[in-house]
Amino acid sequence: MLRDRSKRRSLDPVAGNEFLHRRSFLRGGLAAAVTGYSVVKTAAAEPLTDDPWSLVPGAVTRPYEQRSRFEDQVARTLSNPKGEARVQNARTPLHLLNGTITPNGQHFVVAQSGAPDIDPERHRLLIHGLVKKPLIFTLDALARYPMVSRMSFIECGGNSAPLFSPQPIQANVQGLHGLVSCSEWTGVLLSTLLDETGVDRQAKWLIAEGADAPTLTRSVPLSKGLDDAMIALYQNGERLMPANGYPMRLLLPGWEGNMNIKWLRRIKLTDAPGMTFPESKTYAQILPNGKAYQFYFVEEVKSFITQPSPGTKMSGLGQYEISGIAYSGDGRIARVMVSADGGKTWAPARLQQPVMSKAFTRFSMPWRWDGRPAVLQSRAWDDAGNAQPTRAEFVAQRGELKTIPPLAAFPNQHFNGITSWAIDEKGEVKHVYA
Amino acid sequence: MLRDRSKRRSLDPVAGNEFLHRRSFLRGGLAAAVTGYSVVKTAAAEPLTDDPWSLVPGAVTRPYEQRSRFEDQVARTLSNPKGEARVQNARTPLHLLNGTITPNGQHFVVAQSGAPDIDPERHRLLIHGLVKKPLIFTLDALARYPMVSRMSFIECGGNSAPLFSPQPIQANVQGLHGLVSCSEWTGVLLSTLLDETGVDRQAKWLIAEGADAPTLTRSVPLSKGLDDAMIALYQNGERLMPANGYPMRLLLPGWEGNMNIKWLRRIKLTDAPGMTFPESKTYAQILPNGKAYQFYFVEEVKSFITQPSPGTKMSGLGQYEISGIAYSGDGRIARVMVSADGGKTWAPARLQQPVMSKAFTRFSMPWRWDGRPAVLQSRAWDDAGNAQPTRAEFVAQRGELKTIPPLAAFPNQHFNGITSWAIDEKGEVKHVYA
Repeated sequence: MLRDRSKRRSLDPVAGNEFLHRRSFLRGGLAAAVTGYSVVKTAAAEPLTDDPWSLVPGAVTRPYEQRSRFEDQVARTLSNPKGEARVQNARTPLHLLNGTITPNGQHFVVAQSGAPDIDPERHRLLIHGLVKKPLIFTLDALARYPMVSRMSFIECGGNSAPLFSPQPIQANVQGLHGLVSCSEWTGVLLSTLLDETGVDRQAKWLIAEGADAPTLTRSVPLSKGLDDAMIALYQNGERLMPANGYPMRLLLPGWEGNMNIKWLRRIKLTDAPGMTFPESKTYAQILPNGKAYQFYFVEEVKSFITQPSPGTKMSGLGQYEISGIAYSGDGRIARVMVSADGGKTWAPARLQQPVMSKAFTRFSMPWRWDGRPAVLQSRAWDDAGNAQPTRAEFVAQRGELKTIPPLAAFPNQHFNGITSWAIDEKGEVKHVYA
Repeated sequence: MLRDRSKRRSLDPVAGNEFLHRRSFLRGGLAAAVTGYSVVKTAAAEPLTDDPWSLVPGAVTRPYEQRSRFEDQVARTLSNPKGEARVQNARTPLHLLNGTITPNGQHFVVAQSGAPDIDPERHRLLIHGLVKKPLIFTLDALARYPMVSRMSFIECGGNSAPLFSPQPIQANVQGLHGLVSCSEWTGVLLSTLLDETGVDRQAKWLIAEGADAPTLTRSVPLSKGLDDAMIALYQNGERLMPANGYPMRLLLPGWEGNMNIKWLRRIKLTDAPGMTFPESKTYAQILPNGKAYQFYFVEEVKSFITQPSPGTKMSGLGQYEISGIAYSGDGRIARVMVSADGGKTWAPARLQQPVMSKAFTRFSMPWRWDGRPAVLQSRAWDDAGNAQPTRAEFVAQRGELKTIPPLAAFPNQHFNGITSWAIDEKGEVKHVYA
């Protein structure tokens, strides 16, 4: 029943700064390192006692389960908690979550005017414009069509924008990268509905419109609409959350967050883009070469380390697991390398299987912290051949701000460079440029 | 940009009673059938008007998102809502969910005495008995070990027990099959921790104990503990829900629900099983041949149709998608066949990819309801070669009750036979034996 331990190899570092072979934990590597801590005790002399909660009946099960009161601090941070008349951001606490799915309560939100209170019985989806037969769909009608499910991340085009700052902004992974989340989305492929309406030969774009008060509107090439675009009705098994588009949103796997129109009420096929406010202004950056960076859609290959990261504590010397998230709007993650010496040496991280296209992939790597300063980095490649750039490479191409604005006020978009966390001798973790 | 429609084949049934080729929706099959309904309208003459929710600012985003008020009726049904001194069951509304993940608020629960209110800072996991070095782990200590994620269903051994009744009980899929759910679980493999403690050669079993007031205790062969058993810390990305074991539970992928000990506080390695109450009484059925059916662990291959199912409405004649869930504690789902004529003819369903071992697999099949009575069935096979039995085959081996007890009072276990839904001429869906 037990495995033969005699064949284990010795515990060799595989790169600089104390990376370990991925199976090193299974060779007794951690026992020596960790059992010296007060957090793990040898138990021989411990009497077995009941904790107070084991002595009384527990809480009655409710129709819809709620979290433990001890988890209240695991929450999204809000940019506009009073709902003043400007955008509301809610950032996902990626450093406190694990796995690859973002629970529905923690999915990031960017909303121009909060979440409309939509009655699903009365909501309609209209598809019209350059179609052969315009149609209106109710939720009941959509329920009769073939549904598909897929894991997909959604990322705000402005996620990670603080890294355009000329100096590293001291924030945690939630503040820097918290505008990305990943869910299992289920719904009807848009191509299925366009087969119902028919498509005119002149149609080249579709314009999608939400039912929120600002009527957020974006233009999408029809080719994406006929590829993997989905009318998403379920998020991780249940109906969408109100701030994520209840009762239906457009899902454009791997494409800029706000094109995934929430509270979707209308799709109009056209021969040209609508030049709506977001695509004429918000997402039309002027590059260093003077050209406008307009109609770039894909959230490109990216990764960052979530544990350890600023705000998580190093609980002493010894072995840890470095863990993080990688994703690409161009396909599957092919490889993630991690460095503990600011990019001098690299080692390949383990990728949690199955690796799915345009979805979060969790990577991990055992690491022994010897108390010396370290700089942790991760770098991802996707199966379309794209590599995550260094920050220096990225800002050389796409520009860098000259001043440090407040955290929520970065005008630039689509940052996907490498993130660096420095660990000092006290075990404090800080955001640095390296 | 548009695909060539000229190559489409005609819309041929692939089995009796109006099953359709899986791509038939993409050949214009539904347009004719559905656009006659009031739920889908041609839109040419419709003026575009704003709904009331589009005219006012929406709700302010909160730190932890809550569901729409229109979803309150999508909820678990409770067997003991007042928390009287007996077991509490909460059944998952599988007919109202979709995809493969059960959201954390809707995961089924069986709790002997509710959910203990555990302080995660004070909770400890002890591993002792036939080990070389007994150890106590805190949550912080476990956070430093390598973590893995996996999709896994958990199913109560008593799920589907109403089908032991000699007459089909009129309940919906939630009442009949709602004690099974599927999540992404993340945590530390038990084998990793047993490498830390070491294992004595005499050890053959482990006894796992929960911190709830009844101290639920189950015996598990050590081979499972060294295979894929996990100390689960996260459920769909966030910490476990209180009634699902917060802050940690034992996950035994594919094995009988209550062996997956919640609120796990102790694992003792032994040379023999503990013969605890659940394994001596609850899960030790007397078979028709007079022998006790003890220490059967695996939740065997099973499937059932969730849409349509009792309580969902048929909204008129024409095309529908039959959709359901299949899973096996022995591995991956290899195949699901569906029948609309009570098992006379069968057609292969589409399996949603990726198909993962010991996890929910969503299957689907387009079907045209012509208004005649129909009996819908699904039958699953796993990649270990097991086939889901008919109900008649199953009860011949495992027994059938002589009387019809109340829904929650079936003493027998591990039913995995075929479920049949009859649709009458009015479109009403009922549970039948066929």
